[in-house]
Amino acid sequence: MAVRAAVAGASGYAGGEVLRLLLGHPEIEIGALTAHSNAGQQLGASQPHLAPLADRVLQDTTAEALAGHDVVFLALPHGQSAAVAEALGDDVLVVDCGADFRLRSADDWTAFYGSEHAGTWPYGLPELPGHREALRGSKRIAVPGCYPTAVSLALFPAYAAGLAEAEAVITAATGTSGAGKALKPHLLGSEVMGSMSPYGVGGGHRHTPEMRQNLSAVAGEDVTVSFTPTLAPMSRGILATCSAKAKPGVSAASLREAYEKAFAGEPFVRLLPEGQWPTTAAVHGANAAQVQVAYDEHAGRIIAISAIDNLTKGTAGGAVQSMNIALGLPEELGLSTTGVAP
Amino acid sequence: MAVRAAVAGASGYAGGEVLRLLLGHPEIEIGALTAHSNAGQQLGASQPHLAPLADRVLQDTTAEALAGHDVVFLALPHGQSAAVAEALGDDVLVVDCGADFRLRSADDWTAFYGSEHAGTWPYGLPELPGHREALRGSKRIAVPGCYPTAVSLALFPAYAAGLAEAEAVITAATGTSGAGKALKPHLLGSEVMGSMSPYGVGGGHRHTPEMRQNLSAVAGEDVTVSFTPTLAPMSRGILATCSAKAKPGVSAASLREAYEKAFAGEPFVRLLPEGQWPTTAAVHGANAAQVQVAYDEHAGRIIAISAIDNLTKGTAGGAVQSMNIALGLPEELGLSTTGVAP
Amino acid sequence: MAVRAAVAGASGYAGGEVLRLLLGHPEIEIGALTAHSNAGQQLGASQPHLAPLADRVLQDTTAEALAGHDVVFLALPHGQSAAVAEALGDDVLVVDCGADFRLRSADDWTAFYGSEHAGTWPYGLPELPGHREALRGSKRIAVPGCYPTAVSLALFPAYAAGLAEAEAVITAATGTSGAGKALKPHLLGSEVMGSMSPYGVGGGHRHTPEMRQNLSAVAGEDVTVSFTPTLAPMSRGILATCSAKAKPGVSAASLREAYEKAFAGEPFVRLLPEGQWPTTAAVHGANAAQVQVAYDEHAGRIIAISAIDNLTKGTAGGAVQSMNIALGLPEELGLSTTGVAP
Amino acid sequence: MAVRAAVAGASGYAGGEVLRLLLGHPEIEIGALTAHSNAGQQLGASQPHLAPLADRVLQDTTAEALAGHDVVFLALPHGQSAAVAEALGDDVLVVDCGADFRLRSADDWTAFYGSEHAGTWPYGLPELPGHREALRGSKRIAVPGCYPTAVSLALFPAYAAGLAEAEAVITAATGTSGAGKALKPHLLGSEVMGSMSPYGVGGGHRHTPEMRQNLSAVAGEDVTVSFTPTLAPMSRGILATCSAKAKPGVSAASLREAYEKAFAGEPFVRLLPEGQWPTTAAVHGANAAQVQVAYDEHAGRIIAISAIDNLTKGTAGGAVQSMNIALGLPEELGLSTTGVAP
Repeated sequence: MAVRAAVAGASGYAGGEVLRLLLGHPEIEIGALTAHSNAGQQLGASQPHLAPLADRVLQDTTAEALAGHDVVFLALPHGQSAAVAEALGDDVLVVDCGADFRLRSADDWTAFYGSEHAGTWPYGLPELPGHREALRGSKRIAVPGCYPTAVSLALFPAYAAGLAEAEAVITAATGTSGAGKALKPHLLGSEVMGSMSPYGVGGGHRHTPEMRQNLSAVAGEDVTVSFTPTLAPMSRGILATCSAKAKPGVSAASLREAYEKAFAGEPFVRLLPEGQWPTTAAVHGANAAQVQVAYDEHAGRIIAISAIDNLTKGTAGGAVQSMNIALGLPEELGLSTTGVAP
Repeated sequence: MAVRAAVAGASGYAGGEVLRLLLGHPEIEIGALTAHSNAGQQLGASQPHLAPLADRVLQDTTAEALAGHDVVFLALPHGQSAAVAEALGDDVLVVDCGADFRLRSADDWTAFYGSEHAGTWPYGLPELPGHREALRGSKRIAVPGCYPTAVSLALFPAYAAGLAEAEAVITAATGTSGAGKALKPHLLGSEVMGSMSPYGVGGGHRHTPEMRQNLSAVAGEDVTVSFTPTLAPMSRGILATCSAKAKPGVSAASLREAYEKAFAGEPFVRLLPEGQWPTTAAVHGANAAQVQVAYDEHAGRIIAISAIDNLTKGTAGGAVQSMNIALGLPEELGLSTTGVAP
Repeated sequence: MAVRAAVAGASGYAGGEVLRLLLGHPEIEIGALTAHSNAGQQLGASQPHLAPLADRVLQDTTAEALAGHDVVFLALPHGQSAAVAEALGDDVLVVDCGADFRLRSADDWTAFYGSEHAGTWPYGLPELPGHREALRGSKRIAVPGCYPTAVSLALFPAYAAGLAEAEAVITAATGTSGAGKALKPHLLGSEVMGSMSPYGVGGGHRHTPEMRQNLSAVAGEDVTVSFTPTLAPMSRGILATCSAKAKPGVSAASLREAYEKAFAGEPFVRLLPEGQWPTTAAVHGANAAQVQVAYDEHAGRIIAISAIDNLTKGTAGGAVQSMNIALGLPEELGLSTTGVAP
Repeated sequence: MAVRAAVAGASGYAGGEVLRLLLGHPEIEIGALTAHSNAGQQLGASQPHLAPLADRVLQDTTAEALAGHDVVFLALPHGQSAAVAEALGDDVLVVDCGADFRLRSADDWTAFYGSEHAGTWPYGLPELPGHREALRGSKRIAVPGCYPTAVSLALFPAYAAGLAEAEAVITAATGTSGAGKALKPHLLGSEVMGSMSPYGVGGGHRHTPEMRQNLSAVAGEDVTVSFTPTLAPMSRGILATCSAKAKPGVSAASLREAYEKAFAGEPFVRLLPEGQWPTTAAVHGANAAQVQVAYDEHAGRIIAISAIDNLTKGTAGGAVQSMNIALGLPEELGLSTTGVAP
């Protein structure tokens, strides 16, 4: 019997990607699609690539519209998930693609999001130690942020193996879809094409405390994160360049071993052969992360780099992967690690 | 029992796309992968996006390597398919992604390709009248060129309904993957990004006689084609803007009707709702064509526009679709009309 | 003594490009800069590339702010130029980058712009027969549209020499800056990158009557124009692919001769050597047009292709060129034909 | 009397950009243009954007061809400059855009370039303390690498003011023109568009010792540099994200003061207003650097970011700026800080 899934926020980029993946998922039947300003329109107007759903009409995002499903994906602006989830009840699996339930620290939440902390749900990054287990049978999932997904996958093996000092320095480049469909001047094609630009410099990006939370948990000590995001002239993809000072005795071989161990058996993370480096093109549209690590001997630093698709493994793919685990389905069901390239 | 498929030319763009689709095909088991200059390498070195096949080693393209399969896809330079096909024998389904067996006219072949005509195979554009039937049970398939696919789908309904004069004027924009992986200066990223440029102007493009052949067959008279291809700053996609003078009495309504009739029941072609126009992004990675048609009343012309992914519906997707028909499998098996966007 | 110039609409793309060129013009002193929603801000906030003017504060667009200059450039939304020009008086050179005074036909204006016709000013495309003379000493200049600039330069020599039938079929690709800074969903970087899409298909684009006006005047008969614009994934540039049936007796040689004659001595148009085709990259940021022409013998059609930068030769460069002529300055002053490439 | 300049390597990207700038330089007369594989061709074939020089024929790169000029720009592969410079004699100003004479340490040269050290010439980054003076009257100039230009401008003020610890962590994104016109698969447009990828990770990039040299000289102690370059989907531009631990007592205010002091009076470097961040688009084609600095209080790190055009301020613009100084011309002559945007 098919699992019925609804998507709230179906006209945005995250909601659209959830639908793209659900269309290829053999156990899912797509139910209600809701939106805010696009309610009443056919989905094909805002998501012309979702051809099989083009004629479906978007409803208003209400508890009534979302009722009667087994799974509800929320792709809503920050701060709106708690009320919707409460109305849906405890028997429905609610998968929140937003930030509301990611952080454990209420102080961090208030400092970075400026509102009251809604709570903490099981965190949908199964590759992190302990998280896969916590997702099994859960009725609530907090899908990680796209940057924290890329950064955590790149760095956690070094922290898990005790190889890295507790100060991480991270620069990441993202495609513009990470900023959503908001009509802001700096997101216009004319501004973006041919240009690289940073934003949220100096510690202000909201994904910083989430990275800190993930890496500190693995390291068993507080990890400081200095994170600089940059906007790149591409629609999709995150390339995260992560760096930390190596602890004494670290070598290229011990690093390699730690990363091989961390990702052994992981279906969606590929530690590349030595000498090959991640590219975002290779994971375009795939629920996949490419990871590589190097030891910069002169500087005594670990350089770990990951590439993901911000919308797939960074959002909707991670959401479906975690849904599979929560529902007891095979983790890889409906998800592909094959990228669309060139 | 799975169908065993081999791919010759697996390190190129066409071969890589065939493999990407075969990886998602439930009835296919991927057999030998062969290449020329990359033989001996792991596939992951040239096709890092094909993660599930990354460790597979490329063999030399020989009859021995390709023997023992049910289907062999050829993604080879022009002129090499005939010899390979002959060596494979008549029991194997040979799907040629190259041009060798597309043209019926030996004169056209010689004029545009400069060598002896190898022959003509059933033509893998099932949407054209009569072609689906010809593919059933065939052991040989000539996959259409990417431009002829886009142009034929855009214009054939007008000719089939007798609405268009026999002189077509066509401009198409293609992504750079249409030119393959050849190392030519004008295909460098530095040259391509931020630039539009035409090529093969004045009737010289090799796809011109193929368009002429397709449109003339449908029209029942010789259709003249004036075709100008342009290179666009994107990796994938073809947008074909096709125009022909309308015959007397044509109206927007009669055009709409002709196109609705031509594509009724077609699984991979979507005539867009009135007022919506094709975009290549919407069919990125999909075995899908978006088509729209308008009547330019002032000029008395029919304007038909199609968007496809040159590598998918324009090459590898069309190949797999035709293979499904030839093998008696459901035509849509393993193929998706959902694009990867944004 | 320097010529004092003001720019109304200085925070938009057209106004910004006018300023970029005026900064390099040896006879111009930049005076008032005005804007609408950005008034009160420093120019550097909206135009960070105009470093020498970064600290200049934008004023409201009023007659007072624009008074006291020798030249006023208007880069305003359609319909606003007439009132401003009237307030400035007859002694000031007013250069309108908008559409208000381009069309001679009041019927065309009303049909395509939906308001009352404001009048007709000398048309700033000096390369068209008779226009350079009309601009000398004029106090009013209507800067041509970007598409009409590209298309007229590509086709007028064929019409001037009586080589082309009076039905033109045109497809053009433009960079996104042609659509301005308007915050529309389809202009977001995420939507534009990797995608080609048409718009205004079937005769509806507002630049169509302007092309018709230009080509008909040269041809001495009514030229029908079927024009399809497409949006390309680049910030700047127009590639216009223009086609018309050749009159009897036309040859490649007679075409070449006509084009050589038409552009002899023109400082800003370059007829490329035979076999070389225009690219938009080659004229990026330059007040230059590249033109090439071919005879498609099989189809009996003339194919003329031009490349310009829509913001430079297509708007601001054409404006400064015409200003030079109107003021009696050397036509090439402050203008370069060197593109910024790659 | 004009200064006669020759350019060796005129068909490449660096040589082309030198010519683009020289065309706008009021004191320069462009003499011989030489090339290697393109010798004998017209310049317009390889550099179609340099319209005023399109008909100039490229000569072979020989001492004879380059003789008789006041200035010779060398844009040659590494290792070829010494022999050419020697043949030209001591009276000619030789400006080497290659790496041969940048490094003071012969050991660094051999370790990173694998050949014998040719020597050290005055280093063409006038903004670094002491360098402007060393360039005055010099007959030899080593033009800095593009990355070292961006990184040194971003970080030297922090080191000059004693605010930063001696370990720098740097990630930079470059446009593809930084890799030149070499025909390599990973530089094809199909591979580059839509993709970010790192290279030379772990300390191996040849620009690393040059950064170390510059920052150490300013700091007065050995500065360790951990540098990760990434390739971005754009033709031009470098965005350098540079980070170092702050020394005790550092504040946002002390950082701001140090940067204001370092760039006071510098014509080509703009410290942006607080809250505004560099973008590569803003300096496209300009001999300009945008710099901004922030203090990441939580992590205790200085984040300094710069944007340049790799071909302009990063290569050819820096070369012309240094030439101006060496010849006793005004430093800003023929150089613009206005970018071509959007």
